[in-house]
Amino acid sequence: MYTTNAINPEKAIDRSVADQPPAEEDLYFEQNPAPEYLPEFERKLSEFLTNNGTRKVAVVTSGGTTVPLENNTVRFIDNFSAGTRGATSAEYFLENGYAVVFLHRQFSLLPYSRHYTHSTNCFLDYMVESETEPGSVKVDEKYQVQMLDVLRKYKQAQKDNTLLLLPFTTVTQYLFSLRCIALTMSKLHVDTRCVFYLAAAVSDFFMPTSRLPQHKIQSSGGELVVNLDPVPKFLKRLVEAWAPRVMIVSFKLETDESILESKAKTALERYNHQLVIGNLLQTRKKEVIFVTLEETEKYSLTDEEEKEGKEIEEIIVPEVIKRHDVWQEKVCN
Amino acid sequence: MYTTNAINPEKAIDRSVADQPPAEEDLYFEQNPAPEYLPEFERKLSEFLTNNGTRKVAVVTSGGTTVPLENNTVRFIDNFSAGTRGATSAEYFLENGYAVVFLHRQFSLLPYSRHYTHSTNCFLDYMVESETEPGSVKVDEKYQVQMLDVLRKYKQAQKDNTLLLLPFTTVTQYLFSLRCIALTMSKLHVDTRCVFYLAAAVSDFFMPTSRLPQHKIQSSGGELVVNLDPVPKFLKRLVEAWAPRVMIVSFKLETDESILESKAKTALERYNHQLVIGNLLQTRKKEVIFVTLEETEKYSLTDEEEKEGKEIEEIIVPEVIKRHDVWQEKVCN
Repeated sequence: MYTTNAINPEKAIDRSVADQPPAEEDLYFEQNPAPEYLPEFERKLSEFLTNNGTRKVAVVTSGGTTVPLENNTVRFIDNFSAGTRGATSAEYFLENGYAVVFLHRQFSLLPYSRHYTHSTNCFLDYMVESETEPGSVKVDEKYQVQMLDVLRKYKQAQKDNTLLLLPFTTVTQYLFSLRCIALTMSKLHVDTRCVFYLAAAVSDFFMPTSRLPQHKIQSSGGELVVNLDPVPKFLKRLVEAWAPRVMIVSFKLETDESILESKAKTALERYNHQLVIGNLLQTRKKEVIFVTLEETEKYSLTDEEEKEGKEIEEIIVPEVIKRHDVWQEKVCN
Repeated sequence: MYTTNAINPEKAIDRSVADQPPAEEDLYFEQNPAPEYLPEFERKLSEFLTNNGTRKVAVVTSGGTTVPLENNTVRFIDNFSAGTRGATSAEYFLENGYAVVFLHRQFSLLPYSRHYTHSTNCFLDYMVESETEPGSVKVDEKYQVQMLDVLRKYKQAQKDNTLLLLPFTTVTQYLFSLRCIALTMSKLHVDTRCVFYLAAAVSDFFMPTSRLPQHKIQSSGGELVVNLDPVPKFLKRLVEAWAPRVMIVSFKLETDESILESKAKTALERYNHQLVIGNLLQTRKKEVIFVTLEETEKYSLTDEEEKEGKEIEEIIVPEVIKRHDVWQEKVCN
């Protein structure tokens, strides 16, 4: 019915990083500082992967990365992303028995709590002072049923230790974190059980550390010209060197429908990974395309489903899981 | 003990906008599109000001403004600001009997709910399923006392209708909103009762609508050069034309201590408003300076106070209110 993409998993395993000059992507990690928290990050991750035994694991990246324009950062470039796709997908991976490493932009939406943050309601609008027990704060009756359902799922994930929340802010933190996750998975030999589901909106451009001004840019000098370098194509490195046995799903967000599929195809050809999920900014909550080198399939919500509050991720995630099963079968045999 | 600044309020009243060529600041409003919600915004504001009768009013601006780099926005430049200063100050204005118009960046911190959002705790961490009443969600015992206090203050502000939340995202939305507030206050003759407390981190640069690309910038072309124009100095316009009878407090955030006071003085001389509150990114939660043309005063928390969780806004706001009383006295007599 569908085929997992292009790359021959045996070939993937054979690819070697040795005997090659340092790639541009590797130089990035030498020329930009690693986040201070990286060793602690790696410790938590290893513990999480070990605790999750033989469970399948989805690494879901979510939210936008920032590009600081100053060393003591006041100004930065950001990518629009509330983190809805990532946070919602994470819940469906958990419901389908996966453990989830949720690498997300700090303060973007989180699985489960997303139902109550970033809404027009403020936190306190869900609360009332109890009438029967004055002095006691409780959840307003009209939110009780839904909140109980969400709370139970959240507490279950906590109890089972199946959800690891790892935050980032800058594009550099994101890239160091992603590499660390990939290398840790290989080291622990859990890589074939894993899928990378790269829903974060990662900046294509950055300001090299060497060019960052120390202090806030002053506005007295008239216009501002910001000169950014392209971020190295780390996805190539991820596929070839860091995580050749992990199934990799990337996202392509465009605003211009006429170029979406061709951009997705180009990415597949360039990076040689397994699946690109394409979406348009305008319709991303009700329609996506799954693009492999062989075929393009469209998945969308009917108007009916949309009205009932069904989420497109409820369709996306099981489809990804089917393809992950096929991939795993191939890589392991 | 201290004096309100420079400007002679009688002179302020006499200033006229008529018979002058359109200023650069006014052209900005012709060349960039007004937010669609502006008429609704003005209606809500007028109703709020009317309902608040003779109460003093603080217009607190809060959070950072964005500068979209594309018309269908994926990328934008942002200013670092969680909105802590604004959200915290708004609470102390309310406690001191003011009505508060809270013009804030969407999803930045809000008065009262700020105690529970943007924390390391997720929303659901405050909740438990009741043991005595299974199926009922309540607030965890250990958060009850503080949450009750915060909830009561929040509900009181709602009941008294003393807090109006007005969100913005882009710098253009912010500027249209600010002008609308100033002009509405003058129209309703409530301006002398008002203070503008401009804590938002407003971009100094923007991309004119005429130069915005329609679609997402493609990364295939190598480096990215972003060319931004300086935002017109709207503060001058606010002081001279839109709100000459309103006391205006601006903030100056720097990262370099050696230029903070001189930058604050320069702003006062240029815009002729009443007070600049200066702060450094690094120490902004425990120390500020109040700069007028006559003098600079420092306010800070002792280590003891900081340890007890006292907030610097508890000192800042009453100091501003004292100066507002003096200002009001002068303008009205």
